[in-house]
Amino acid sequence: MSTILTWPQIEPLIKNLDVYKAMKDAFIQYSLGHAEIPPVGELIMDDPEGEVHIKYGYLKGGKHYVIKIASGFPANEQLGLIPGQGMMLLFNLSTGEPDAVLIDNANLTVIRTAIAGALASQALAKKSVDNALIIGTGVQARYQAKYLCDLMSIKKLSIWGRDKDKAEQVKRDLIDLHLDITVEDDLEQSASRSNLIITTTSAKEPILESDWIQPGTHITAVGSDTHEKCELDFNILAKADVIVADSIEQNLIRGEIHQAIKHGAIDKNQLTEIGEIFNGTKNGRTKDDQISIADLTGVAIQDLVIAESVLSAYQNK
Amino acid sequence: MSTILTWPQIEPLIKNLDVYKAMKDAFIQYSLGHAEIPPVGELIMDDPEGEVHIKYGYLKGGKHYVIKIASGFPANEQLGLIPGQGMMLLFNLSTGEPDAVLIDNANLTVIRTAIAGALASQALAKKSVDNALIIGTGVQARYQAKYLCDLMSIKKLSIWGRDKDKAEQVKRDLIDLHLDITVEDDLEQSASRSNLIITTTSAKEPILESDWIQPGTHITAVGSDTHEKCELDFNILAKADVIVADSIEQNLIRGEIHQAIKHGAIDKNQLTEIGEIFNGTKNGRTKDDQISIADLTGVAIQDLVIAESVLSAYQNK
Repeated sequence: MSTILTWPQIEPLIKNLDVYKAMKDAFIQYSLGHAEIPPVGELIMDDPEGEVHIKYGYLKGGKHYVIKIASGFPANEQLGLIPGQGMMLLFNLSTGEPDAVLIDNANLTVIRTAIAGALASQALAKKSVDNALIIGTGVQARYQAKYLCDLMSIKKLSIWGRDKDKAEQVKRDLIDLHLDITVEDDLEQSASRSNLIITTTSAKEPILESDWIQPGTHITAVGSDTHEKCELDFNILAKADVIVADSIEQNLIRGEIHQAIKHGAIDKNQLTEIGEIFNGTKNGRTKDDQISIADLTGVAIQDLVIAESVLSAYQNK
Repeated sequence: MSTILTWPQIEPLIKNLDVYKAMKDAFIQYSLGHAEIPPVGELIMDDPEGEVHIKYGYLKGGKHYVIKIASGFPANEQLGLIPGQGMMLLFNLSTGEPDAVLIDNANLTVIRTAIAGALASQALAKKSVDNALIIGTGVQARYQAKYLCDLMSIKKLSIWGRDKDKAEQVKRDLIDLHLDITVEDDLEQSASRSNLIITTTSAKEPILESDWIQPGTHITAVGSDTHEKCELDFNILAKADVIVADSIEQNLIRGEIHQAIKHGAIDKNQLTEIGEIFNGTKNGRTKDDQISIADLTGVAIQDLVIAESVLSAYQNK
């Protein structure tokens, strides 16, 4: 019999999950070619506007295959509904039996994205960064802050959003992190002062310009997961020393890397996969004054790891 | 809150479903271009062998988008498990909210395939057919017989399978149809005598030869839904007067049509879609002595129709 959980049952399990090692291992296995991850399935709705992503696959020798459905319907907010909806499904890899239906309202996607972002920031930013800038005021901005502070010694956090009131709300929501948090007015100034920048918006035009980025900066870009969304001026990638994809195959058609390659700013041969960084088979940053970028479009192995972790936490509670 | 049903809850609802009209309408809308159906998602497992199909999409102006997961793991039988597993999911097309999780063990896929097969046989076979040959001894053979007899006046049914004992079991299982059922020894003889042939196997090499097919025969082929499975000698399609696909886009890469085109036996321009036949905008059979073929690979709109129909039956019971 399948385990069926809704978000109110899943949420209390989250705080005790320790998925960092499993997440790193999954990226390592993926980059070693030990995963079957077909291209992302996508549905686009016009009226009202909506977007559904279906990510699926498995790790060879694993327990489950995962199918993850996550949607965004922006007009939901006017109806008093959350924009994110969806579920994660785990099926037995040997028999196809459904083991878990996690009706997570797309929250597990937000969380696994934040975990991968924090791991990438930790692996690629220079050691001495103690202040970070988060761009965006959505739920992803909050979770990036939370998991980043869990992994790195962040003392000062800057928040910038197009809507300053929303940025102030992010600051209030992060009070439990006991951090020095500043809501920024001027993105250029703030970006120029920051050696760790995390972009979490759904922008379709670049919001971060190349001239603002100083030597020694690491950028983790998690907002763009489609072929059209774009947060970074492609010249940032052109001047970067280290460009890391979560999935080279996927980033060639989605995200910042896709945009930069489309504009001829970078070449496919410059790319490293985050699994190769985690595995130590490729170098990330080798000098403090380098510019590094992690472009994370979200891979089904992350869904597999978080869903298995939730199922295991539920079974062992 | 989502409606979550398992097969024991779904099964009693099936006998009262009347989905013929909805199924025809969905094919008509699909062929008019009023559907969004991305390419089928697929996962292949090696050890043990397994195959997962993910079909998804929606009808414009409809209530739901559907995601259907159906898998086949042949070695399950040795474990006392059924080979077919999976579920159908309905999400609100305007908000993305999950409305139904139907854990159907792939049975709804079998049923919607049988319904589409029966509708295609009815639309394309000549009027005076009163005996039919079903090739295959699996669950699909049984359901094709059931829905065919519901729609057409079949008096005599022949069954052929590689394993005669299994064919005898199909005959016993169909006792409620009150038909004259013959288990056939010789496929060539039986095929030559039949004007309606329904193929339901998972063969990867043709089992039905061109010379056996007489003028006036209609064949509904539902077994092949991948780029490699194949039940019909491609010369059968070459000599056919009418070749109908459920989805031309899909059949160009899956099923009998894909095989025949690959071998240069037919041309894309010869193809008609079943929705065009149902809508009356294209001709099916125009003469009794023509040979017609319906190659059905299974389209997500069928999953949408059957899932909505089950949800509605549950809500109204």
